[in-house]
Amino acid sequence: MGIFDVIYHCRSMRRLKPDPVPEELLLRICEAGNQAPTGSNMQGVRWIIVRDPEQRTRLAELNRKSVLNYVDTRRVDVPHHDPAKRQRMLDAVLWQAEHMGEVPALILACHQWLEAPADDAARAGAGGSVWPAVQNALLAARALGLGATATTLGLVDKPAVREVLGVPDTVEPYVLIPVGYPMGNFGPVTRLPVEETVRYDRWEQ
Amino acid sequence: MGIFDVIYHCRSMRRLKPDPVPEELLLRICEAGNQAPTGSNMQGVRWIIVRDPEQRTRLAELNRKSVLNYVDTRRVDVPHHDPAKRQRMLDAVLWQAEHMGEVPALILACHQWLEAPADDAARAGAGGSVWPAVQNALLAARALGLGATATTLGLVDKPAVREVLGVPDTVEPYVLIPVGYPMGNFGPVTRLPVEETVRYDRWEQ
Repeated sequence: MGIFDVIYHCRSMRRLKPDPVPEELLLRICEAGNQAPTGSNMQGVRWIIVRDPEQRTRLAELNRKSVLNYVDTRRVDVPHHDPAKRQRMLDAVLWQAEHMGEVPALILACHQWLEAPADDAARAGAGGSVWPAVQNALLAARALGLGATATTLGLVDKPAVREVLGVPDTVEPYVLIPVGYPMGNFGPVTRLPVEETVRYDRWEQ
Repeated sequence: MGIFDVIYHCRSMRRLKPDPVPEELLLRICEAGNQAPTGSNMQGVRWIIVRDPEQRTRLAELNRKSVLNYVDTRRVDVPHHDPAKRQRMLDAVLWQAEHMGEVPALILACHQWLEAPADDAARAGAGGSVWPAVQNALLAARALGLGATATTLGLVDKPAVREVLGVPDTVEPYVLIPVGYPMGNFGPVTRLPVEETVRYDRWEQ
């Protein structure tokens, strides 16, 4: 697929079939992620591919708690969303929350440091090295016909996630990417017109 | 270009010609960025395309100070880098620092909130919505034959950057992307073998 086709048709796909995904494809997704730039080219992005049913169930349960809490307490209105569209997104998020344990692969994008970060701000500071890799991974999944979403709600209870995965102090889980064959169709994404998002030379025009 | 070709040949291109880039291409880069997912689909990514020579000079000077400080004080050794390769990267960073004012377009990826964030942690918290857009923008630039890099050193002195660009409290500059036609050739990126970056089901194997 051409790069622009992929970029413009890379919807967050949340309703996924339980059918297994070949390991080769999961590795291609991670490998594509690794090609993204990292700060000082440190290449600290690490992936945990979770397919074990018990491990998936544990992560799914952590995600479900966070999603239900989010939907209850933070139902945000976004000016540029029509309510029907927003409701469809929330429905898909809730579907994903109820079925995440059946999704064949949960890929965790993590960052590994040579030494444990000094504090939470330092732990959060590698986002600029992890998120570009996650975006590459989402694009690769789309190109391979796989549905995926980048989610962080499932990682809110970080100590619990760390315990499930047994990650050491030098590793931080950043993003959870459920991957599987989509139930629906890949459609185009809809976004604000670019003109509404661009300024020239300074903020005030 | 095919998506995987772009992903595997999207080097950070720092040595750029001063030749102007058509505005249409700069907008395509930003538009591609906007297609990336954002947290809760808030679509808060904003772009400031800086082409005015005086504005470029101001940003270039802020970047130069940070780069020289970085090179002096934080020359990091990375285990998987051979020293010659690392030196080539640093040379390119220094070249960019000396010539950034001549690069035809400096694109700032920013985040805009509906209300000003409560504190610095909240300001830093939109990285997961900005960096995927930046990665899309880098891939789009590559596909259009343009060289680009995602840099943050030039934004270290945030108050000075905010003053130059006149951004309000509700907007945060995140990433500076110098864009232009490259002096050198686009080559493949070189990264760790994927097997060294992947674990299965839990961290300890």
